[in-house]
Amino acid sequence: MRIGPPGAERPAVLGADGTPLDLSAITPDIDGAFLSGGGVERARAALTAGHLRPAAPPQAAGGAGRRVGAPVATPGKIIGIGLNYTDHAARTGAAPPTEPIVFIKPSDTVVGPDDDVLIPRGSSKTDHEVELAVVIGRTARYLADCDEAAGAIAGYTIANDVTEREFQFERGGQWDKGKSCETFTPLGPWLVTPDEVGDVTSLGLRLTVNGTAAQEGTTRDMIFGVHHLVRYLSRFMALRPGDVVITGTPAGVAMGSPDRSFLRPGDVMELEVDGLGRQRQRLVAA
Amino acid sequence: MRIGPPGAERPAVLGADGTPLDLSAITPDIDGAFLSGGGVERARAALTAGHLRPAAPPQAAGGAGRRVGAPVATPGKIIGIGLNYTDHAARTGAAPPTEPIVFIKPSDTVVGPDDDVLIPRGSSKTDHEVELAVVIGRTARYLADCDEAAGAIAGYTIANDVTEREFQFERGGQWDKGKSCETFTPLGPWLVTPDEVGDVTSLGLRLTVNGTAAQEGTTRDMIFGVHHLVRYLSRFMALRPGDVVITGTPAGVAMGSPDRSFLRPGDVMELEVDGLGRQRQRLVAA
Repeated sequence: MRIGPPGAERPAVLGADGTPLDLSAITPDIDGAFLSGGGVERARAALTAGHLRPAAPPQAAGGAGRRVGAPVATPGKIIGIGLNYTDHAARTGAAPPTEPIVFIKPSDTVVGPDDDVLIPRGSSKTDHEVELAVVIGRTARYLADCDEAAGAIAGYTIANDVTEREFQFERGGQWDKGKSCETFTPLGPWLVTPDEVGDVTSLGLRLTVNGTAAQEGTTRDMIFGVHHLVRYLSRFMALRPGDVVITGTPAGVAMGSPDRSFLRPGDVMELEVDGLGRQRQRLVAA
Repeated sequence: MRIGPPGAERPAVLGADGTPLDLSAITPDIDGAFLSGGGVERARAALTAGHLRPAAPPQAAGGAGRRVGAPVATPGKIIGIGLNYTDHAARTGAAPPTEPIVFIKPSDTVVGPDDDVLIPRGSSKTDHEVELAVVIGRTARYLADCDEAAGAIAGYTIANDVTEREFQFERGGQWDKGKSCETFTPLGPWLVTPDEVGDVTSLGLRLTVNGTAAQEGTTRDMIFGVHHLVRYLSRFMALRPGDVVITGTPAGVAMGSPDRSFLRPGDVMELEVDGLGRQRQRLVAA
């Protein structure tokens, strides 16, 4: 994980008792070079050897602790997958895709897991999407099979793929216009390595708005699984260490739910994915 | 401009006689920090004062000189505009858009203006798009008018928005799948400041394939002009120094031209925009 003010985060790792331990002696930051250069193994060795000292405590939800940043510094690209849950596709009336729907989010939309999310000026349809995020650990092109895809994955974290639906669907052309707004990709709190995440095909995902359940799903309902997605993407683009794949959202977004309203200033979103921690964002007018 | 091997380019500026002069004494690189931190003015002052020494000569088309890189190091994001020329929209049978069509290209698709372009494996419809590229010079949000938009522009260069049409249109969903392949955004050779580019609303654009004219157009046929685009984009995303807007392509792409074939290994594209220099790329199988 990364702890500190925006742009000045310091690397840390959670100890067995949940205490954040300072990784500065191991690496200046958690980024593509760290992930592809054996950084995780170095961090694990230092952790096992008891060489790490406590970092400042992370910010608890609503607490006064220090800020948690996105778990990867300056991701190279954010690759989004559309309509990848059977329940979400059914609920929004879209036909399930026959191959993955791919879009790109600018990486400067990434913020920390508990940072404010800005509602763009002129927006009336800002919406949430809790997602499992995959962090790439090495350069990958034309992966041969799912085993090779698994080997290209550094770990997992939570993403909120915040989306403005009018900008996405009613302003001409492509989804990207509703996906690229500032602060629209809260990421974190931790990068969890594949060996610690358990069975990635049965993780529960939850999102509440002002404490009321909105999204509730499981990665079992993914149309295209994580390894399939990574292999598929490697046929269309080079994947690089630090790139992030956000793998689609389960049912329960505001769009298509007559009983739900879109997000408003002052609303609070809380997100959780099994084993990956929690996020909490307040909505603020841009 | 930037001269040197990929990832190790050094900054340079063209002298009045066309000789590249070394800018290393002024800045370590030409990037967002340089552009937003008064770098252009410092370079201009050093050039005027005669303080700069010749850099190694840039690579001439087909020559043996040194490689030219993209004129901006590690652009933050590449923002594409679709169907923005009246002639291109008419020729491809698409209705002219009522507001700009926006898509995002990953910035790791950027290569130098004379670097090889990779035809993806499985591709049968790799196509070219000569475009005027706008480089952003300062952080910009919610620009009030075209004057403010003009003030956010650091300069102009040429882009080839290489696109795989089957991936773009026939593989589900969004254009990005056909826009994100490795090497798909040759950029350069120079960043030309607005005062030196002349009238940006009447620049000729040309692209040949193996010496035969393919695209021939003028920025007069843009549906949405450069300042309009920059102002428009600033309502949907934060623009940052070093971001690049590629503003759409005139008629003459292979798609929709029955007498044209898509690009094949060994083909050579040459691109030119008035006042912005030339590009030359060879196609190579990935």
